Amino acid sequence: MARTAIIGLLAAASLVAQGIVDLTRSPYAKLHPVPVKAVRLAGGFWEPRRQVNVEKSLPGMLELLEAHGIVDNFRRLSGRKQGPRQGPLYTDSDVYKWMEAAAFVLQSEDRPDLTSALDRLTDDIVAAQEPSGYLNTYYQDDRAKLRFTEMYRSHELYCLGHMLQAAIARYRADGNRRLLDAGIKFVNYLVSEFGPEKRPLLTGHPEFELAVIELYRVTGNKAYLDLAGYLLSGVERDRLKLSESQIAYMFSGKPFTSRPEFEGHAVRAMYAASGAADYYIETGDAAYRETLDRLWTDLTARKMYITGGVGSRSDGEAFGEAFELPNLAAYTESCAAIGNMFFNFRMLQATGESKYADVIERALYNGIDSGMSLDGTLYCYRNPLASTGEKIRNPWYDTTCCPPNLQRVLASLPGYFYSTNRDGLYVHLYDQSELTWKLEDGTPIRVRQDTKYPWDGSVTLAVSPEQPAEFTLFLRVPGWSRSTRITYPGGSVTAPAGKYYPIRRTWRPGDVVQIKFDSRPQLIASNPRLLENWRKAAVQRGPLVYCLEQQDQAGEKTPFDLSLTAQAKPFAEEFRKDLLGGVLVLKHVGLADSKPTMEQPLYEGIGASQATPTAPAELVFIPYYSWANRGASAMAVWIRLK
Amino acid sequence: MARTAIIGLLAAASLVAQGIVDLTRSPYAKLHPVPVKAVRLAGGFWEPRRQVNVEKSLPGMLELLEAHGIVDNFRRLSGRKQGPRQGPLYTDSDVYKWMEAAAFVLQSEDRPDLTSALDRLTDDIVAAQEPSGYLNTYYQDDRAKLRFTEMYRSHELYCLGHMLQAAIARYRADGNRRLLDAGIKFVNYLVSEFGPEKRPLLTGHPEFELAVIELYRVTGNKAYLDLAGYLLSGVERDRLKLSESQIAYMFSGKPFTSRPEFEGHAVRAMYAASGAADYYIETGDAAYRETLDRLWTDLTARKMYITGGVGSRSDGEAFGEAFELPNLAAYTESCAAIGNMFFNFRMLQATGESKYADVIERALYNGIDSGMSLDGTLYCYRNPLASTGEKIRNPWYDTTCCPPNLQRVLASLPGYFYSTNRDGLYVHLYDQSELTWKLEDGTPIRVRQDTKYPWDGSVTLAVSPEQPAEFTLFLRVPGWSRSTRITYPGGSVTAPAGKYYPIRRTWRPGDVVQIKFDSRPQLIASNPRLLENWRKAAVQRGPLVYCLEQQDQAGEKTPFDLSLTAQAKPFAEEFRKDLLGGVLVLKHVGLADSKPTMEQPLYEGIGASQATPTAPAELVFIPYYSWANRGASAMAVWIRLK
Repeated sequence: MARTAIIGLLAAASLVAQGIVDLTRSPYAKLHPVPVKAVRLAGGFWEPRRQVNVEKSLPGMLELLEAHGIVDNFRRLSGRKQGPRQGPLYTDSDVYKWMEAAAFVLQSEDRPDLTSALDRLTDDIVAAQEPSGYLNTYYQDDRAKLRFTEMYRSHELYCLGHMLQAAIARYRADGNRRLLDAGIKFVNYLVSEFGPEKRPLLTGHPEFELAVIELYRVTGNKAYLDLAGYLLSGVERDRLKLSESQIAYMFSGKPFTSRPEFEGHAVRAMYAASGAADYYIETGDAAYRETLDRLWTDLTARKMYITGGVGSRSDGEAFGEAFELPNLAAYTESCAAIGNMFFNFRMLQATGESKYADVIERALYNGIDSGMSLDGTLYCYRNPLASTGEKIRNPWYDTTCCPPNLQRVLASLPGYFYSTNRDGLYVHLYDQSELTWKLEDGTPIRVRQDTKYPWDGSVTLAVSPEQPAEFTLFLRVPGWSRSTRITYPGGSVTAPAGKYYPIRRTWRPGDVVQIKFDSRPQLIASNPRLLENWRKAAVQRGPLVYCLEQQDQAGEKTPFDLSLTAQAKPFAEEFRKDLLGGVLVLKHVGLADSKPTMEQPLYEGIGASQATPTAPAELVFIPYYSWANRGASAMAVWIRLK
Repeated sequence: MARTAIIGLLAAASLVAQGIVDLTRSPYAKLHPVPVKAVRLAGGFWEPRRQVNVEKSLPGMLELLEAHGIVDNFRRLSGRKQGPRQGPLYTDSDVYKWMEAAAFVLQSEDRPDLTSALDRLTDDIVAAQEPSGYLNTYYQDDRAKLRFTEMYRSHELYCLGHMLQAAIARYRADGNRRLLDAGIKFVNYLVSEFGPEKRPLLTGHPEFELAVIELYRVTGNKAYLDLAGYLLSGVERDRLKLSESQIAYMFSGKPFTSRPEFEGHAVRAMYAASGAADYYIETGDAAYRETLDRLWTDLTARKMYITGGVGSRSDGEAFGEAFELPNLAAYTESCAAIGNMFFNFRMLQATGESKYADVIERALYNGIDSGMSLDGTLYCYRNPLASTGEKIRNPWYDTTCCPPNLQRVLASLPGYFYSTNRDGLYVHLYDQSELTWKLEDGTPIRVRQDTKYPWDGSVTLAVSPEQPAEFTLFLRVPGWSRSTRITYPGGSVTAPAGKYYPIRRTWRPGDVVQIKFDSRPQLIASNPRLLENWRKAAVQRGPLVYCLEQQDQAGEKTPFDLSLTAQAKPFAEEFRKDLLGGVLVLKHVGLADSKPTMEQPLYEGIGASQATPTAPAELVFIPYYSWANRGASAMAVWIRLK
């Protein structure tokens, strides 16, 4: 296959050191995330999850992708395999997402098995690419004439976006640019063939926008940024004859800057907002910033679950109306919570505001972490906030977008912990870990976190610049910490919640900062418009939302038969090493309905029902992320409060 | 077109006097409903609705059916019109349902315009029928080879069922049997071609079962009853290779008697249960009765809205799990509430038990009556129990099943009021009206009801057999009437709720019975498993469920910003002749959140939220059926209780 001429890549030596996104030259980035490889997680909360991902999830998913013929879809195009194409039209993206996850692992550690798997897959993929650069296993071969004719559903750019992200992650891991060159070739084909004066282009499922902007960051080729801007501009609405309902569902096809609120398919909307945030970071376009702010407020004030999950409706996998956040019926696709994290990660870098990191933490510890089983082999597509006990975790889905998406998040997780700016270093997340990186003035620095976070609210940071250096350490104080004490060499302060607390001083090797967050359990109430939550409470402890699972309750009472009571000291805490990989359990003496709710009347005059007898009962809460790891069981986050 | 030989109809003279169903010869019917024409509604609650239906709804819907080409679908097959077939594959049924409604009107009154419209439509329909008897505008012409090959979706038997019901209603109105003969011809074709030893048959959308059993009642041809039994038996599951999900969705395709609960498409399930009840009434099959009882309990103890609406999920227009009854998201299709009424009407005749009449009344006065606008021109497809103000009523739907279904219910309503049995006369419903009929011993009888029901709980019945006669008058005491006083010649009793109160005596012309139901407003609570209703109340007064509509509230507060409070005398009553066709309004001094809920935080620690300030506010309740008649407005049935 002819190798097309591509433009040179930016200084290769520095590229392998770049983060999940590379904002080093982005004019409107307030912060710059550190590379994935700069942070080593070590034996705390997340490292076992990351390890299971590497050891179990990634090998298992590659086997399943092979077993379902999803990789063969590439091989059949080069004649390496025979037989019909398998799976829905967007399956290429699942291979790419797996590859991106594997490549992120390589940014953290040497894994020859993953390297050779990536090489083999890359070989099969590149062999399937057409000379023009076009590559999509559904629209090659017998469906070639449908190419770019049904973009509202085709996922052609979606798949390419995931290919680019995999290629960039690989390139940043070890400099291997084989997939990257193939991706650039396809993008160059798009640049030459599509645009306002040429053929119309559409991202029917947004995702390509953030990928092609990252490609711009890798290559410096402004045509790629402009292509993203063109897609976000929605100018092709008329030429493509898009309907109102398509535009709502796709969250694409009309000017992004005309969006008053989130609607439609939640993953599409989150990816679109992530891409638009990337576009703002590069252009500083005020209309984008206003829109992003408006959408963020819509999301966090009206449309987000307490778990960070988004997208309440199964119908269209879509956002509901404002405050339409049912628990049992919640759709809350794992991919949508991940999209929420991506969106907030970009807003955080754009602004340096802690409220975005709070949403990242909320989604990560709850609605994302719930998506993968503790043993790394089963996945939630939906992450509801209540269940009567249906099976929620499966090894494989026909639309298997969520499993490799969870895998790439866990593999890239070290890259979410820190950012730098001219003033110093931002600490976004807390966990047992070590940062080895440099300040923006070039001073090498190590930061070691010693903590049992999130089980314990104490964090010790050993801050060691290579030599004494004046800079600001920005410590995120989560919104949930009602009182926070920070002690550092020469000072001790009470820091306000929901902000970065800045400590500017001359830091010396070995300086120690002690943080005490208030991680005691809290009862959370929600807006009365959340119709299922009136006079109910959720239990949150630190960043973790808790839940009641039926099998932990005495007499296997369902969570729907139990009530919380208002008490001065409502919760006893017990760390159970043996349970669910080690969790801190919360116990509360509440009430159980004496007659199971299943047997209570459907409707009755008030008076009778007020007298429903109850008896004291111990309620045992576990972290939401750990539910459904012991077989099917009823579960609820929001519990009646009496 | 050749006229096939058909078996003779049962004594034609008596047929025109038959009711909605004719149970006069049904061995397992405990009760026998009176004919539609035996009851004349007169100026009470329902007659204005029935009249609007005749004057506005029926003419308007026929115009729309013509304007959308739905009638032309028949004409194009006989060459009377050209052009492509219009609408989804089941549109024939909408014409038939309209015809059934018109025919029911003819059972009550002479309407030459409707008679001639029916004649014209019948002419077009019969002209489209194939010589074999087959008739379906979607599967004739170019789709003929798909006939009976995709019955899980084809609606072929569904459309035929509606054709039979229209034909029977017409035949019972004026003896005209032209459509009936055409229907019999099609059914005879089925009988000859399909069955266990022949080709397999399936009702992909149940409805045909009740229609073909009614045809058995009209003709006495047992082959028709057996055909229904064959379809309900589900024996063709394997031959048709039906999947579990199809069987769940269709509520058909496996033995009806193996059904543990309601699931799947709610209208299908309700029609299937109605047909199975008809089958029980004819056969007395104990397995059917057990299944019907089990399903009825599942429905009324776990899956029915307080409005009588059923089917909570928009996804698949389906039942949810037990207690999955969301308010804002409620699907509650008008057709499903109607199916609920049909099912309970048949169970009532089978058993004589008042609990079935209670459900009929609940559905009729609430979840069905809400389906048609007060002016008879707009229809709800969904009947949710809360709304943030979306447009809910439309003159037409692409799937326009609900409008003519509502029309046939209103047109046939007089037929639901009374039944007879050997012992005497059952009164199921109360309204200003006159019955002119006969007891089962042949004694002519008139019963005049004088009442302002449901606005007032007093009913005066003038019971006038032509000559003195000993029989039992069974008066339904609704489950909602907490105390009921019945005074009759020579006695006065307090009657228990939720039963028929029997008065056996020798009745003389002009005897008067006075009933005083307790129709004072009640606060209703629901099972805690109804997650949206915890610590909320619905207001019910007599059979009417009430709601708060935004435009009635001071300052246009939304119902989500208002709370009920527990009070000794909670409601003031005011009959407003000028409002919504005349409704009794309920007023309550409750509380309003000082800060609108739209602006309150999504989540916050308890303590803060408990302190949400409130101020006294007057809550103005209107009957649920009358909502959304003054433009879009937020609405709620279940109101926070403080």
